[in-house]
Amino acid sequence: MEYIAINLQEKLAKFSDHWSPKIIAQMNDYHFKLAKFQGDFVWHSHADTDEVFIALAGEVTIEFRDGKAYLKTGEMFVVPKGLEHKPFAEKECKIMLVEPAGTINTGEAGGDLTAENNIWI
Amino acid sequence: MEYIAINLQEKLAKFSDHWSPKIIAQMNDYHFKLAKFQGDFVWHSHADTDEVFIALAGEVTIEFRDGKAYLKTGEMFVVPKGLEHKPFAEKECKIMLVEPAGTINTGEAGGDLTAENNIWI
Repeated sequence: MEYIAINLQEKLAKFSDHWSPKIIAQMNDYHFKLAKFQGDFVWHSHADTDEVFIALAGEVTIEFRDGKAYLKTGEMFVVPKGLEHKPFAEKECKIMLVEPAGTINTGEAGGDLTAENNIWI
Repeated sequence: MEYIAINLQEKLAKFSDHWSPKIIAQMNDYHFKLAKFQGDFVWHSHADTDEVFIALAGEVTIEFRDGKAYLKTGEMFVVPKGLEHKPFAEKECKIMLVEPAGTINTGEAGGDLTAENNIWI
């Protein structure tokens, strides 16, 4: 049997759109997704789940109503469920997200930046 | 409020023992762990959960009864639940594991390499 590792750089090369996470792996009922962020996202929260951000390349700020988390390459952060947050990246950054399958990128907020949540690459 | 990112390199610098995963983050009922692998681990499986391996630095081979997965830096693999596997690293490698809180590193096998599963760093 052939067991193929998932190469993050190869997967990142497969898309260029911003704020549109792509699924690369499933663990039980969780998805590992890659995304490219640039500019401002929308304020939103996920009522039922924590959400993991891992900065693979570049820098991202996750704003909260009472502060912010700043992540550079090789850093991660767990946004607690229910906590309003707004990612922001001055330059394009590459992010891995880990969250339950079916999680919507804009959470409870909706709007124009809501992406398909079932695209595998 | 101060929100502090988790820096993987800083966390990796906090321990040197092999085959002894340390918890760095929790997302819902899952743990993100760092580990250093060198040499041969034991054949084992996890009856109730998939297990994610992400190679942060170095190379690891995950042997299966009918093949192997080879991961180098920046690659990941999801070991399906119930599938017997044995990690092997010729040189020390640095790994991130993602799995349910409470998962035992040696799974159903037990033995001398069984590590504490609740150590945070």
